Amino acid sequence: MSLNTFGHLFRVTTWGESHGPALGATVDGCPPGVEINEAMIQQWLDKRKPGQNKFTTQRREPDEVKILSGVFEGQTTGTPVQLMIENTDQRSKDYGDIVEKFRPGHADITYWQKYGIRDYRGGGRSSARETAARVAAGGLARAALGVLAPQIEIKGYMTQMGPRGIDRANFDWDQIDQNPFWTPDAVAADDWAEYLNGLRKSGDSVGAIIEVVARGVPAGLGAPVYGKLDTDLSAAMMSINAVKAVEIGDGMAAAMLTGTENADEIRMGPNGPEYTSNHAGGILGGISTGQDVVVRFAVKPTSSILTTRKTITKSGEDTEIITKGRHDPCVGIRAVPVGEAMMACVILDHLLLHRGQIGENRGKIG
Amino acid sequence: MSLNTFGHLFRVTTWGESHGPALGATVDGCPPGVEINEAMIQQWLDKRKPGQNKFTTQRREPDEVKILSGVFEGQTTGTPVQLMIENTDQRSKDYGDIVEKFRPGHADITYWQKYGIRDYRGGGRSSARETAARVAAGGLARAALGVLAPQIEIKGYMTQMGPRGIDRANFDWDQIDQNPFWTPDAVAADDWAEYLNGLRKSGDSVGAIIEVVARGVPAGLGAPVYGKLDTDLSAAMMSINAVKAVEIGDGMAAAMLTGTENADEIRMGPNGPEYTSNHAGGILGGISTGQDVVVRFAVKPTSSILTTRKTITKSGEDTEIITKGRHDPCVGIRAVPVGEAMMACVILDHLLLHRGQIGENRGKIG
Amino acid sequence: MSLNTFGHLFRVTTWGESHGPALGATVDGCPPGVEINEAMIQQWLDKRKPGQNKFTTQRREPDEVKILSGVFEGQTTGTPVQLMIENTDQRSKDYGDIVEKFRPGHADITYWQKYGIRDYRGGGRSSARETAARVAAGGLARAALGVLAPQIEIKGYMTQMGPRGIDRANFDWDQIDQNPFWTPDAVAADDWAEYLNGLRKSGDSVGAIIEVVARGVPAGLGAPVYGKLDTDLSAAMMSINAVKAVEIGDGMAAAMLTGTENADEIRMGPNGPEYTSNHAGGILGGISTGQDVVVRFAVKPTSSILTTRKTITKSGEDTEIITKGRHDPCVGIRAVPVGEAMMACVILDHLLLHRGQIGENRGKIG
Amino acid sequence: MSLNTFGHLFRVTTWGESHGPALGATVDGCPPGVEINEAMIQQWLDKRKPGQNKFTTQRREPDEVKILSGVFEGQTTGTPVQLMIENTDQRSKDYGDIVEKFRPGHADITYWQKYGIRDYRGGGRSSARETAARVAAGGLARAALGVLAPQIEIKGYMTQMGPRGIDRANFDWDQIDQNPFWTPDAVAADDWAEYLNGLRKSGDSVGAIIEVVARGVPAGLGAPVYGKLDTDLSAAMMSINAVKAVEIGDGMAAAMLTGTENADEIRMGPNGPEYTSNHAGGILGGISTGQDVVVRFAVKPTSSILTTRKTITKSGEDTEIITKGRHDPCVGIRAVPVGEAMMACVILDHLLLHRGQIGENRGKIG
Repeated sequence: MSLNTFGHLFRVTTWGESHGPALGATVDGCPPGVEINEAMIQQWLDKRKPGQNKFTTQRREPDEVKILSGVFEGQTTGTPVQLMIENTDQRSKDYGDIVEKFRPGHADITYWQKYGIRDYRGGGRSSARETAARVAAGGLARAALGVLAPQIEIKGYMTQMGPRGIDRANFDWDQIDQNPFWTPDAVAADDWAEYLNGLRKSGDSVGAIIEVVARGVPAGLGAPVYGKLDTDLSAAMMSINAVKAVEIGDGMAAAMLTGTENADEIRMGPNGPEYTSNHAGGILGGISTGQDVVVRFAVKPTSSILTTRKTITKSGEDTEIITKGRHDPCVGIRAVPVGEAMMACVILDHLLLHRGQIGENRGKIG
Repeated sequence: MSLNTFGHLFRVTTWGESHGPALGATVDGCPPGVEINEAMIQQWLDKRKPGQNKFTTQRREPDEVKILSGVFEGQTTGTPVQLMIENTDQRSKDYGDIVEKFRPGHADITYWQKYGIRDYRGGGRSSARETAARVAAGGLARAALGVLAPQIEIKGYMTQMGPRGIDRANFDWDQIDQNPFWTPDAVAADDWAEYLNGLRKSGDSVGAIIEVVARGVPAGLGAPVYGKLDTDLSAAMMSINAVKAVEIGDGMAAAMLTGTENADEIRMGPNGPEYTSNHAGGILGGISTGQDVVVRFAVKPTSSILTTRKTITKSGEDTEIITKGRHDPCVGIRAVPVGEAMMACVILDHLLLHRGQIGENRGKIG
Repeated sequence: MSLNTFGHLFRVTTWGESHGPALGATVDGCPPGVEINEAMIQQWLDKRKPGQNKFTTQRREPDEVKILSGVFEGQTTGTPVQLMIENTDQRSKDYGDIVEKFRPGHADITYWQKYGIRDYRGGGRSSARETAARVAAGGLARAALGVLAPQIEIKGYMTQMGPRGIDRANFDWDQIDQNPFWTPDAVAADDWAEYLNGLRKSGDSVGAIIEVVARGVPAGLGAPVYGKLDTDLSAAMMSINAVKAVEIGDGMAAAMLTGTENADEIRMGPNGPEYTSNHAGGILGGISTGQDVVVRFAVKPTSSILTTRKTITKSGEDTEIITKGRHDPCVGIRAVPVGEAMMACVILDHLLLHRGQIGENRGKIG
Repeated sequence: MSLNTFGHLFRVTTWGESHGPALGATVDGCPPGVEINEAMIQQWLDKRKPGQNKFTTQRREPDEVKILSGVFEGQTTGTPVQLMIENTDQRSKDYGDIVEKFRPGHADITYWQKYGIRDYRGGGRSSARETAARVAAGGLARAALGVLAPQIEIKGYMTQMGPRGIDRANFDWDQIDQNPFWTPDAVAADDWAEYLNGLRKSGDSVGAIIEVVARGVPAGLGAPVYGKLDTDLSAAMMSINAVKAVEIGDGMAAAMLTGTENADEIRMGPNGPEYTSNHAGGILGGISTGQDVVVRFAVKPTSSILTTRKTITKSGEDTEIITKGRHDPCVGIRAVPVGEAMMACVILDHLLLHRGQIGENRGKIG
């Protein structure tokens, strides 16, 4: 069995394989009356689109989204929105070794072990191509957030590539959109370009860390105890291809702190509570505090590499494999818009969930 | 709204507050015919029970579980199993400051902002006491696993306390149950005892890292793409009180590796595929490989500390707070059996989900 | 596997067997700030309670509800509400034939075939005793409706007992609470008393039809296309023990009508649309119209009767059975408060679901 | 919010409007290894297709299904199957009155009241055209049943048209596919042809009753207490457009019986238990008995009729309406394959759910 839906009220079901006729997202639960059109979604897909520079796969797909349902005269109707992206560049000619051999570090072997059948063309369902559908759904979520909570701003960026991290002193919000790595550190961007070029030439790949921040999230979102905001965010990020870890706020480093160091102190500000720090990443007890919601996740290096690796065949023989083809040397780059999309979907979902309160002035402070 | 259920087929709903009459877990979907009794569950609760040594809260609760339904003549019947733990030590006399003030780093403020009402007695629903219900449910999951997959072994242990990590060279599986920190490193155990004593005396607390391993998990468990085994594990662990990060296998460190370093090579062994390393933590593409499933999570330091901290009151005035009372200086210690319980529940759930295959020899290798 | 939860946002999980230590309902998703106490729930349980007159089982249970969680200082907190009813009259002495034989028309045989284990004491989980938990949850739903939509009134009554139906000309709303059959027709009440006495003496039982009406339900509730208001109502009613059919509005009779006869014409009234008739039972396209929501369901006769019937044993031998013990000659009577409870839960659930609208004046007419 | 998914493990999400670019079903949870192609699904769509004879709408759609995902080399892969039907005959020119007026008996008014926006073209999402997606999903469910339980046979047929019912003495299983009404009674077929012609000429419509039978369903399917087989079947059928009632076995008539008359007696047959009658419709306590599963549902008459009816406008003015256009005089006819599809989906879903049993010989009789 597979479980291809996420979300409680804003429910996104993605479908499709890397080299099938199409892939997409069936979005159920988008509120009615949200202005939306294909161009509004396309802008986010373009950000993730392959083939934009030499640091991402050279597979060229226009990745053009079509809205097949749920929208009438430019507005959502409250019925399911079907977002479809046709696969136009389906080079099916040659999958060579992959048909019989399992790439180490890849889902080839586990899909076979689970299902006993595997669409080996481009990784099939396990391909990162699935994330295009997430980005499309995220575009719709952003449009709905634009109506329900226009103050919310969501931004993702890369903070680490392999052993090389950014220098937080160089952090420049406006720099993010100006380099191929979506990093806020211009110095790191130059460094990474050179580093990644070297790796690519040597037929290798590398991991990365992505940070996604949501600003302007109101306090009170999150559904304890198993639908906590951080629980849902960690599930959302961990479900992205190649992600191996998720951190909220200080994340793993919180383990190193004492209680005195860790707890963010509170003062009363003109518009409500203010915090003197944000170790918590904007979430306490699974509920948003009103501070920036900060999530970080680690993306492992692409397993499809040009270096020879030991593996076995479907019939159980020891062998070796080199993966030719058009692969991202650092899949983390294209994971940035995907992380943003997941953040948008989760925040919207919890905004919708939060609407069951009784009374106007409940939970006010001051 | 709140979402207090987790699991797809083995569904656990926990309920109850720290100082209400009782708390428990309503478990729906346990297969019939599993031998179970209260003592089998009690052994795990005893592991988590407070007041066992000076490193955990001195609140003394017998934490005695009662099975109210779903079991007949010592076997599960396939109907819901109600596991109830009565709260016997409800000191309700004095909550002092907590009634009006919010503890920094605690869910006090967000529960208030979400619900507009808050059971302040002992943290109410946000108390780590909720995890007793998880441990009880985990005990039932272990019993079911004992029938369905008796080769599976689940073990949790502490690998880091504040700035002090274990030395993997000292790793001794048999040491885990022999020290109050459930750590496999006897040297670390001594070091931590001294360190924690100092912290406790100074009225402070500290974070920790817990690792949970499941051995013997068959290949093929996990439901891509939003019910992946690692997705569900990360949600399960992140939902535990005070957890701020979750790692699978190499976790955050995977970002630092190259593709050549990261991918676990495969060789054919006598009983199927074998791997030369386990960077993946036993999961590829969200599906188990048959290797050890390795999860790690960070627990932040207790926010209820004896040190004065800045905060505000419900009416919005700046003030300070010191939290007296019986609190764990390192909640991470008691998170060990909780992490094990979550692992047991998730593995069982995916075993049950996996039973929809068609054909006996599907997905075999060799 | 079993599925013991219903509802989308107001989620009720019932648990417990007829002769176990207790049964109850775990209610997740009740909005915070609802005033509730045990007496408010008890009033509905008392309506369903056995042993009140000679027409219901003589089993005497106080059926006293305890609130174990989710309520603080008389108000719901937004966390799970655990409602427990202890089984005090567990005569376990003698189950005689039922241990080895299957009662015809009863779930004895199918529970055995499904689970391979069966709590035969009083029917175990398949006992109508499970409905006490529904009534308790319904009491909480009514309290929440009292805050969110105090104009809503829910009333159930019996319209048919065996071959004898009520005369709609005698319909008297105030009569319903004044006879042991909850019927609005005083003449029928007298007739049924005599009829049922005869049946009881002859060791037989009889079926019934219950109608449940909700007045004051606002237009717009219902979630097309698989969470329609009538879909959820029909599932809710069909899930009650012994129910074999559910009708909305004209129900089966709608099949006999022409389009001209069936469609309720609309006129504009002072407060919005008004309808000249209510064939639709207050629901069009799965969404409430603002008219009375009308549901009807058929309850089959009790299968535990004093008449000899042919059956088989667990070991597959032909035999006969007479069911002694304390059984309702017409279980339909006690199904009335159960139907009301299900209506309350479904209406509340859809009220909560409906709160995702954008904009204040959307969907207004006139 | 809308809820457009049904099923527990075989999950079907339908999407699309009557006059949008396309509609379809996203099917998640189909087991891998099921042979499927478009022709296998098309056969069921052709049965439902409009414009086949003068008794159904003259809208002519090829209703051609395309499989966009989840199938590789003619077999399901265990990933989501996207089934798309493009809308080719979208006459959008003239919707006349419907834009401003609400058709009595139609979802026009309630969709407006719920969502505040309405795709009036052909009824939008509330159109019976949505059922094409169900039939496609049902085709896939039948293919999976063909592998998992090839002995199961599912058949729907019409038993009543307006005031005219079939004569059960004429029941001929082979007659069903030989008349435009899918009725087993050839005499009724002739009678109905004449009757419906008259109605159509007079600009009226009429209701119908459909019966769906599943033969060969193994004992033990159904998940008490809220996922009972009859509960899920009644929800499935009630969710079909224009359905107002659902019956299992004797249905409403069970209310008229005594316990002696109603309970199906049991004898031991060569292959297990046999029943001397089937009042229960093959379901006891929500679990299948192994007998024929029998469901019946009432379809109200089409509300789009050529007769003048009183109604109001969106701006709240009293007016009248006549609905021109291509409408079915008896929508019940085309509901037959839809009812079959829902039966197939529900039975498959419960077959998959049932696979959590422990032990081979559990629940055997004899």
